[in-house]
Amino acid sequence: MTPSAEQRVADLGEDELIASFVPLLPRGRHTLVPTGDDAAVVAAPDGRFCVSTDVLVQDHHFRLDWGTGADVGWRAAMQNLADIAGMGAEPTTVVISMVLPPDTLVAWVHDFCRGLAEACEPHGVGVDGGDLSAGEQLVVAVTVHGDLAGRDPVLRSGARPGDVLAHAGSLGRAAAGHALLTGGRRGGSDDGLVADFLRPRPPLAAGPAAADGGATAMMDVSDGLLRDGGRLARSSGVVLDLDPLARTVPDVLDALADVGARLETDPAQWVLSGGEDHGMLATFPADVELPEGFRRLGDVRAADEHPAGTVLLDGGPPAVARSGWDHFRS
Amino acid sequence: MTPSAEQRVADLGEDELIASFVPLLPRGRHTLVPTGDDAAVVAAPDGRFCVSTDVLVQDHHFRLDWGTGADVGWRAAMQNLADIAGMGAEPTTVVISMVLPPDTLVAWVHDFCRGLAEACEPHGVGVDGGDLSAGEQLVVAVTVHGDLAGRDPVLRSGARPGDVLAHAGSLGRAAAGHALLTGGRRGGSDDGLVADFLRPRPPLAAGPAAADGGATAMMDVSDGLLRDGGRLARSSGVVLDLDPLARTVPDVLDALADVGARLETDPAQWVLSGGEDHGMLATFPADVELPEGFRRLGDVRAADEHPAGTVLLDGGPPAVARSGWDHFRS
Repeated sequence: MTPSAEQRVADLGEDELIASFVPLLPRGRHTLVPTGDDAAVVAAPDGRFCVSTDVLVQDHHFRLDWGTGADVGWRAAMQNLADIAGMGAEPTTVVISMVLPPDTLVAWVHDFCRGLAEACEPHGVGVDGGDLSAGEQLVVAVTVHGDLAGRDPVLRSGARPGDVLAHAGSLGRAAAGHALLTGGRRGGSDDGLVADFLRPRPPLAAGPAAADGGATAMMDVSDGLLRDGGRLARSSGVVLDLDPLARTVPDVLDALADVGARLETDPAQWVLSGGEDHGMLATFPADVELPEGFRRLGDVRAADEHPAGTVLLDGGPPAVARSGWDHFRS
Repeated sequence: MTPSAEQRVADLGEDELIASFVPLLPRGRHTLVPTGDDAAVVAAPDGRFCVSTDVLVQDHHFRLDWGTGADVGWRAAMQNLADIAGMGAEPTTVVISMVLPPDTLVAWVHDFCRGLAEACEPHGVGVDGGDLSAGEQLVVAVTVHGDLAGRDPVLRSGARPGDVLAHAGSLGRAAAGHALLTGGRRGGSDDGLVADFLRPRPPLAAGPAAADGGATAMMDVSDGLLRDGGRLARSSGVVLDLDPLARTVPDVLDALADVGARLETDPAQWVLSGGEDHGMLATFPADVELPEGFRRLGDVRAADEHPAGTVLLDGGPPAVARSGWDHFRS
């Protein structure tokens, strides 16, 4: 069914709406019984599965005028797939609950499903279940699952003093894209940053590669390097000391310099505090060669001079406006 | 932490809020890595897992003045556990995404967690992950998982002409409780019906028992006997023919008679169209003894005179005001 441009979800019954978009959803490599029954059945060849859930709320995590339904579907899926990679696992399947205002365009919902499929299908991930409700505000809750393929899960708590702190993926680009969307966007190179916010591309293969490469701790960076680094450090009972960004990520700062000048923001702020890039932050023993895609950001230190959970920049407290995103405080 | 009576979620940071309620959540029998990392890790001894998701929206599925936070937590968990039972599996773990208006009482959130725990803990089910966001309307999205323990999943599509249609659990009681909540509630015996709506008690063990007992098709009844029966019949390509309710469930009708008279509703309406009891609707070969807790409701017929998906009552179309709940149509 191709919805007309003006068709709203309230124009269809719930069963009819679901029937109209289910054909757009990918079936995964691990799917045994797909969506349509009380529950899906998914293979867990490892005898364990990883599970994580994330919720996106209209006007908090996305705005309908910022991009397409497919952009929202892509991001909803991808930020969840990154959580699985952050454990050292490979994603297998997602299920999705949605709250839709009755005047939501059916075309938007179909577009959302296409974005989900674009994000999931190349990784063999199925969209294997869901639930719909009416409500006042558009909400998307995604639960993702993954298979460790025999690996030990890489937790946040395993970093040890003397380890190297490393990162794979983008830093600060989603934050710059978000800043452009909320004001000051022009065309040209801005579009790349906006796309990095709307459609993050976490280095999913870097997660299992880090696990295979001896990572002692790992997490995906969704709330900013300082805030998520602080969480990893707190879980591990250690301190993280970032080397000067001009030495570790000069190319990242360079690429953000023009937009930073225009928006009167130091790109280092985006790199340190910007979330939603969903790169992999990991620690490795010092004598291990970093897996492909990872670059060194600094060192893990013992919590003696500073309390566990501290993140330093070049040995001192980083000067930042705010330390990442908090959903309940502004 | 015990929140003060007036403390709102906006008074705490996200991390502080989460830290305050995580100790209230049960760890499950199958939990290997609990909540607190990028993902939880859960045992899937069977090499497969079942997964289903449900969303509850304030003022659509629950109202804050109808009951406690614990009631909402209980129901959010239990309606999901029933989906796992409906496959013939045993629930193992749930994860939960919540959207909370900033003025939500912290005490309500803690109470919600206690209700979750009351529902999950006796079944060895863990609450192994979650996500929070601010938003305008309270939303709870639960994803549940289960283990088949070597059983074939019992799908909606396996009913065959000649099978017996049977049911385990309550019928119509949640609908009567809902009707009492929306008007006409007194004390005394009304409270039992209201409790059956606020805190449904699906016969979870009946699901695996039905699978072991040869069920050919099964599902949990969340949207009403006629509507969900129609879904099972459509999936199976058959027609269901219910025997007269006065013959199959006379005690159920009797127990609802007084409240029905007072609210001017035929109890048969609640039994046929009322959802949210989350009983198990299953079909069995005619020569099989029904497992404990199941009672015969009627027969499965071939789709010759009537199209597949039809549900008949005593051979004819049932006279009902509406056929169950649709979230987008009223």
